[in-house]
Amino acid sequence: MRVEIWSDIACPWCYIGKTRFEKGLAAFAHKDQVEVVYRSFELDPRAARGVTAPVVEMLAKKYGRTLDEARGMEEHVAANARAEGLEYRTEGRDHGSTFDIHRLLHLAAARGRQEQLLDLAYRANFAEQRSVFDPEVLLALAVEAGLDEAEARAVLADEGAYAEQVREDEREAAELGANSVPFFVLDRRFGISGGQPAEVFTQALEQAWAGRELTAAAPAGEACEPDGACAVPQG
Amino acid sequence: MRVEIWSDIACPWCYIGKTRFEKGLAAFAHKDQVEVVYRSFELDPRAARGVTAPVVEMLAKKYGRTLDEARGMEEHVAANARAEGLEYRTEGRDHGSTFDIHRLLHLAAARGRQEQLLDLAYRANFAEQRSVFDPEVLLALAVEAGLDEAEARAVLADEGAYAEQVREDEREAAELGANSVPFFVLDRRFGISGGQPAEVFTQALEQAWAGRELTAAAPAGEACEPDGACAVPQG
Repeated sequence: MRVEIWSDIACPWCYIGKTRFEKGLAAFAHKDQVEVVYRSFELDPRAARGVTAPVVEMLAKKYGRTLDEARGMEEHVAANARAEGLEYRTEGRDHGSTFDIHRLLHLAAARGRQEQLLDLAYRANFAEQRSVFDPEVLLALAVEAGLDEAEARAVLADEGAYAEQVREDEREAAELGANSVPFFVLDRRFGISGGQPAEVFTQALEQAWAGRELTAAAPAGEACEPDGACAVPQG
Repeated sequence: MRVEIWSDIACPWCYIGKTRFEKGLAAFAHKDQVEVVYRSFELDPRAARGVTAPVVEMLAKKYGRTLDEARGMEEHVAANARAEGLEYRTEGRDHGSTFDIHRLLHLAAARGRQEQLLDLAYRANFAEQRSVFDPEVLLALAVEAGLDEAEARAVLADEGAYAEQVREDEREAAELGANSVPFFVLDRRFGISGGQPAEVFTQALEQAWAGRELTAAAPAGEACEPDGACAVPQG
């Protein structure tokens, strides 16, 4: 079974939801037969590259609140994160464009290091005082994730590298009706929106597993059997 | 949309079916949004590593025919291949264990070179006088496909490398009811068995595309909206 997870590194519920999903997956009987793929979804696709603002200020401005009230909103999320055993700092985190991070995550996927980079980027953004909007930090995370430094640097420097893959993921999200993240898709049959409790993920995995029969799209054609026989004896 | 194709390099209908599928895909309106993944299926999982026999002799023995009759069976397949523009030699090809080729294809997948290696291996096996059961030929194909020579050599030398991935693909095939190859699975919803005409693939792609709505596995949970808003304002 295959699970695709649309998420953004800047999204707290994605950070929390990833851990909750992993707990839900750990309780699923067929967890060894589940492949997980992460897909790109920019929370703020209009954000300009290189322009950042403190998250708390952004929240205060967006909702017309004081900075203290905005901190309270962050504390609500932080409490959920901590309940999952995740570190979460409510100060010093920036908001900005995550396009380059998504491009780098696609490079990491091509090199088999996607989840390593994703976990490091989440930790940098939410738990540590490292800005994922700083290209040098991104480069350091890429190297920590096991990517080749020169290759990662080249991808970061070339704005077109893996850009189409990011856009394609976002188009697919729209087609699948995902208008917020995290968004989980199981075998392209079932969708789950949001950072749900772990048990919801376990139940969804069980539901998807139970309904896995394929529909034949056509009568069988010429094929090779497992005994090595391919050519049908003629006449 | 995602298409998974279970196949074996030793399977003529897989060789032909791959080209027919590609023609069918080329005629599909949303072809740019189709991802194709190849999965392992050994035609003869009982074949011993390093033991080969000429295909024509194997066929004659299996069906109790003369060598000339076995050549006629091969000619039937060859005519289908040639009708698709594929070279196909009916003499000099061996039958044997394809386990190592599948392991190498998994390495290639991890390095983003799976289809390159698959096409080269098909050509070597069916069109050229190169034995895919010779580790040195496999190594040369891996390098031609763009893999690192030392890494490919290490995988070939280590019988356990990517072995579990091959077995897992085969287990999945069994679970999905695939008992012959090629076997095509569209978004884990539709299955197509055999090297069908191109139009059948186009129709199946259209059918799968039309029925892509997801079922919600649970009510929506806490998530982040595309305007950058994640924390729900409190009070």
